[in-house]
Amino acid sequence: MNKSPVWIWYPGDFEIYHHLMLNIRREERNYHWPAFWRLDDCYHNVRFRKQVYCDTPEEMTVYAHGIGLVWVDGKKHAFRQPIILSTGNHVIEISIARTDGLPCVYVDGERSASNSSWEANDFSFEWLPAGFNSLYPNKEDDPNIFAFDYAEIYPVSIEETQDGILYDYGRESFAALLFENVHSSKDILLFYGESIEEAMDTKNSILIDAVPAGSDTYRCPPRAFRYLFIQGAETEQFVLTALYEYLPLTKIGSFTSSNDMINRIWDTAEYTLHLNSREFFLDGIKRDRWVWSGDAYQSYFINNYLYFDADITKRTIIALRGKDPIVKHINTILDYSFYWIMSIHAYYQATKDTDFISFIYPRMKSMMDYCISHSDVDGFIRGRTGDWVFIDWAEIDKTGAVCAEQILFAESLKATWACGALLGFGEERYLKRCEQLKRQIKEFFWDEELGAYIDSFESGKRNITRHANIFALLWDYADPQQRESIIMNVLQNDAVLQISTPYFKFYELEVMCMIGQLEYVTRQIQDYWGGMLQLGATTFWEEYNPAVTGLDRYGMYGDRYGKSLCHAWGASPIYLLGRYYLGVYPTSAGYDTFIVEPQLGGFEWIKGTVPVNGGKVTVELTQETLQVVSDKAGGIVRINGQEYPLSKDIPFRLNLS
Amino acid sequence: MNKSPVWIWYPGDFEIYHHLMLNIRREERNYHWPAFWRLDDCYHNVRFRKQVYCDTPEEMTVYAHGIGLVWVDGKKHAFRQPIILSTGNHVIEISIARTDGLPCVYVDGERSASNSSWEANDFSFEWLPAGFNSLYPNKEDDPNIFAFDYAEIYPVSIEETQDGILYDYGRESFAALLFENVHSSKDILLFYGESIEEAMDTKNSILIDAVPAGSDTYRCPPRAFRYLFIQGAETEQFVLTALYEYLPLTKIGSFTSSNDMINRIWDTAEYTLHLNSREFFLDGIKRDRWVWSGDAYQSYFINNYLYFDADITKRTIIALRGKDPIVKHINTILDYSFYWIMSIHAYYQATKDTDFISFIYPRMKSMMDYCISHSDVDGFIRGRTGDWVFIDWAEIDKTGAVCAEQILFAESLKATWACGALLGFGEERYLKRCEQLKRQIKEFFWDEELGAYIDSFESGKRNITRHANIFALLWDYADPQQRESIIMNVLQNDAVLQISTPYFKFYELEVMCMIGQLEYVTRQIQDYWGGMLQLGATTFWEEYNPAVTGLDRYGMYGDRYGKSLCHAWGASPIYLLGRYYLGVYPTSAGYDTFIVEPQLGGFEWIKGTVPVNGGKVTVELTQETLQVVSDKAGGIVRINGQEYPLSKDIPFRLNLS
Repeated sequence: MNKSPVWIWYPGDFEIYHHLMLNIRREERNYHWPAFWRLDDCYHNVRFRKQVYCDTPEEMTVYAHGIGLVWVDGKKHAFRQPIILSTGNHVIEISIARTDGLPCVYVDGERSASNSSWEANDFSFEWLPAGFNSLYPNKEDDPNIFAFDYAEIYPVSIEETQDGILYDYGRESFAALLFENVHSSKDILLFYGESIEEAMDTKNSILIDAVPAGSDTYRCPPRAFRYLFIQGAETEQFVLTALYEYLPLTKIGSFTSSNDMINRIWDTAEYTLHLNSREFFLDGIKRDRWVWSGDAYQSYFINNYLYFDADITKRTIIALRGKDPIVKHINTILDYSFYWIMSIHAYYQATKDTDFISFIYPRMKSMMDYCISHSDVDGFIRGRTGDWVFIDWAEIDKTGAVCAEQILFAESLKATWACGALLGFGEERYLKRCEQLKRQIKEFFWDEELGAYIDSFESGKRNITRHANIFALLWDYADPQQRESIIMNVLQNDAVLQISTPYFKFYELEVMCMIGQLEYVTRQIQDYWGGMLQLGATTFWEEYNPAVTGLDRYGMYGDRYGKSLCHAWGASPIYLLGRYYLGVYPTSAGYDTFIVEPQLGGFEWIKGTVPVNGGKVTVELTQETLQVVSDKAGGIVRINGQEYPLSKDIPFRLNLS
Repeated sequence: MNKSPVWIWYPGDFEIYHHLMLNIRREERNYHWPAFWRLDDCYHNVRFRKQVYCDTPEEMTVYAHGIGLVWVDGKKHAFRQPIILSTGNHVIEISIARTDGLPCVYVDGERSASNSSWEANDFSFEWLPAGFNSLYPNKEDDPNIFAFDYAEIYPVSIEETQDGILYDYGRESFAALLFENVHSSKDILLFYGESIEEAMDTKNSILIDAVPAGSDTYRCPPRAFRYLFIQGAETEQFVLTALYEYLPLTKIGSFTSSNDMINRIWDTAEYTLHLNSREFFLDGIKRDRWVWSGDAYQSYFINNYLYFDADITKRTIIALRGKDPIVKHINTILDYSFYWIMSIHAYYQATKDTDFISFIYPRMKSMMDYCISHSDVDGFIRGRTGDWVFIDWAEIDKTGAVCAEQILFAESLKATWACGALLGFGEERYLKRCEQLKRQIKEFFWDEELGAYIDSFESGKRNITRHANIFALLWDYADPQQRESIIMNVLQNDAVLQISTPYFKFYELEVMCMIGQLEYVTRQIQDYWGGMLQLGATTFWEEYNPAVTGLDRYGMYGDRYGKSLCHAWGASPIYLLGRYYLGVYPTSAGYDTFIVEPQLGGFEWIKGTVPVNGGKVTVELTQETLQVVSDKAGGIVRINGQEYPLSKDIPFRLNLS
């Protein structure tokens, strides 16, 4: 038994506190722009308790970030003072408060050491296992400061221009600038740019800083940039260090192939996701840097094929949900509440982590009940004034009940029922409502004449977009005949508006993989993501339309440089290549059993590794041979209609020619 | 139209934030002791909006405690920068966030000036009139700092003893000690005492401070004390200033009589209440200094006969309720939730302040619904494990449903219905449940044989205490025959345990006044409160038992000096003397009509003033004459079975002999 203490807190509050801090960090030129949804905070006073049996006397000291006291067997003690526990049973309770951060404690002791065997309470009736994170094992640690790592990065070029100095760091990064030995009687003005154009457009670049005149040393907050333009000082007037701030993550997934462009795309996707994998999965690193549930949902899947870091997924899920009462949809977006609910069951499928499901289920249920309470008597859910019905940046007919939303609603009902069921108390009402809703979706949204799902039945417009039809194939809302019809009339119909965001490309290309169109997907990845690389991208963008050229490529939201050039949802090739080309996926929760079903998809050869919940599977496929090795039991190799059991650590090799 | 701006915030959040700060300020010797109920905080991000029509162009500047931005007609601006509003209509929205305090803004402008005509939003769907307080009218103000006043107080004696220096400030106070020109190489140790014994008992005194060795200047947090004992320095080694911290309140009520002891009691009660009237009505100033709903309920009534300061009552009501979701009863005490609900209707009766009722009613309703949701199928409410069933510090049979709690429950249902009704949406379900509960109280708790209400019908003990029977008379749960029975069998029966707290004396003596026993009440005030004065009290105590002597007088809660010697609930003579002797009380909401029904109650003469919601009534009664003058219309003088209308500002004089 490891008795090493860790910092403990009210479960979920570490995530909620750091989410709060993250939500208020957006800056654009001269103003801050706090998130436009309610920001929850950790509880400000909590208590912890534990019954301890000491077989020998021990000394215990309570350290805290906050104020409070310790009760041992009813007697009061101060923090930071050694307390002797005699041999025998002791009832320990710690009360702590902090108004400007996360109240947390660290009990330096043996039997009394702080860890999740302690219980935490928010002064409601319920005691829960205390929250902790292995990032904070030392009494000198402060969980109020997120445990990032730092590494110096260096410019690949420094160019003195007439107006200032231009630094090129070679690729997009997220770094804090440190100025030392500054000798300037003027403010030193800093203009950051994801593009060179943005950095040098000193009137419009979104991220700026200034080293105040007379400073000796000045550290800027970390910012997203590749280029930096400095005005007001010569290079001799300061020493500049750029500190890349990042979360150390272990890359397990890999992919290489006979196609160098695709290999570069995979690497760039990995870097893009890594930059956005921080306290939580962010949307992008430049602009809002907020956590968006629909964006994060895709990051969870990509993560499973790259880092398989369960902790960041859990942190993101907890942060997005926040605290009660729920007053609006997550990120104000109807669909984003549903992705949040669905993500929990998806997380379980990947990890079989029942502890987390137990913890989050009450919050999942109340989120589901919030959605149900805002549905209408006909069972459909509609956006109210103030609700954002998003789906995608696309022209969708959003009149009344929207088809894609109803499908997400039904899938969420199913996920909630399933998570309850696996804890032993699934509620039939969710399943019944799900089944009823599925019937109604088919009845109201399927247009037999058009052979496709329409966006809205209330508008009378019978508008078709790819979105609902992609969902219908993804989650089985079409019989075989309808599937064929959707493929022909929508997916392979150029008259239907193309998907223009990497965000929805994720779903579109997944469906194309599902229907066996891998070579189409390979070309799409090469053209769409490769198109960005050919324009010099070092990370993938929020939106990419090959038809848009020049400065317009950087604009979005009415802002000249409004577009994020490092957006997590650009990283989906990692998922697609791991899931459908290397072909590894679970067939029971936690990858207790899994399939390895590789396909070349137009490549001459592919090779790579996929994490499988604590293990990893390496696949190498050419036209002649397949080699697979897994350090986890439970795998089955499926190829050419045959299945072969895969033994742990024993390489599997098949001659295909 | 006054266009002066004030600081604005999300309504209620000023109170909730200061309540949070107050709840974590308790200190006892070497440790802090945060409150043991959930501490709510203000929202950390809010927005404000207003549509402004400018008939001439104006300049507007937004000041803020927090970060954020201003949108004017969709265009973004920074704080602290002048913005020109052209002639015409403008839509202004301000977004602000702050994680370590109250986010609030001040708009310096004419038409755009910040005040309650702005709306505030917590990112739910609902916009409410912005909160403000006239305490913060200048842009330099910070509503995060409560606007107390300070005045220097001086010791009446300084005595150098062998062990240290003893200061006597003459009477209990609440003051911050400021040490200047300190010349000491040792820590200067400070021991505070409400009593001389506590100050000099350096091992056990509850409040201590230390001026760190080597300090030049040091300011202690304000503390409650009359005596101060200093060790570790001679008087030459420092300059000490004591700064009384207080809320300026205008005393309107007054009372003098032929009985000097009672006059001293009234003055001491006034001082006791004043010391406890701060951000909110506190219980006492020494120990926890928290806001307790049952204690505050009495302060509201006393306030109405002294300051008639509606603002502190509103602040206290808002603070006690906190935010949703409700997870426990207010202060964890079942009865205290009910007093909170009842206080709102009582506040309306005194002030006719419909704006406040509109604001608080949703919070009142959800509090009532919380109580209902924890009542049982038989309609009674019982304390669950973790609920505190208090009633009073007395031996009450608290088995199952407790009679006094049910009466408070029924009165709360009535109050909730009534507040809804006066807003135009009273809910019948509250009234029906109230009537049903009243019937059941009479059926289950009235013991015909004993001729009294019993505490519990479930224990089989048929225990009688004064408490439920006092409530029964106070709120009319007895028919005339039962009333007589209660008076004889309980109130005037010495075999029934005496009330030992000033807290419940409030209700007991009110009932004795109601049944015409004023001379008994006069003697009780003289003996009980006078008894404390004779022991040297300069403020009234939390508990007083004449039989307890010596050091034991100061003990409570197992702590040698645990008793508060300045406890707000000791101030009730102010209420009793104003309400039943000067005899002034409203007969319609806000004193639109009121009665002046003076009684001598054993005094030779009485004289005094009672506030009547913006006005005041002065009464002078001797055995020969009655004189009344009111600066508010609507009064009726009632004496000797006759009624006389009272005109505004026209003295009324009646010869009684």
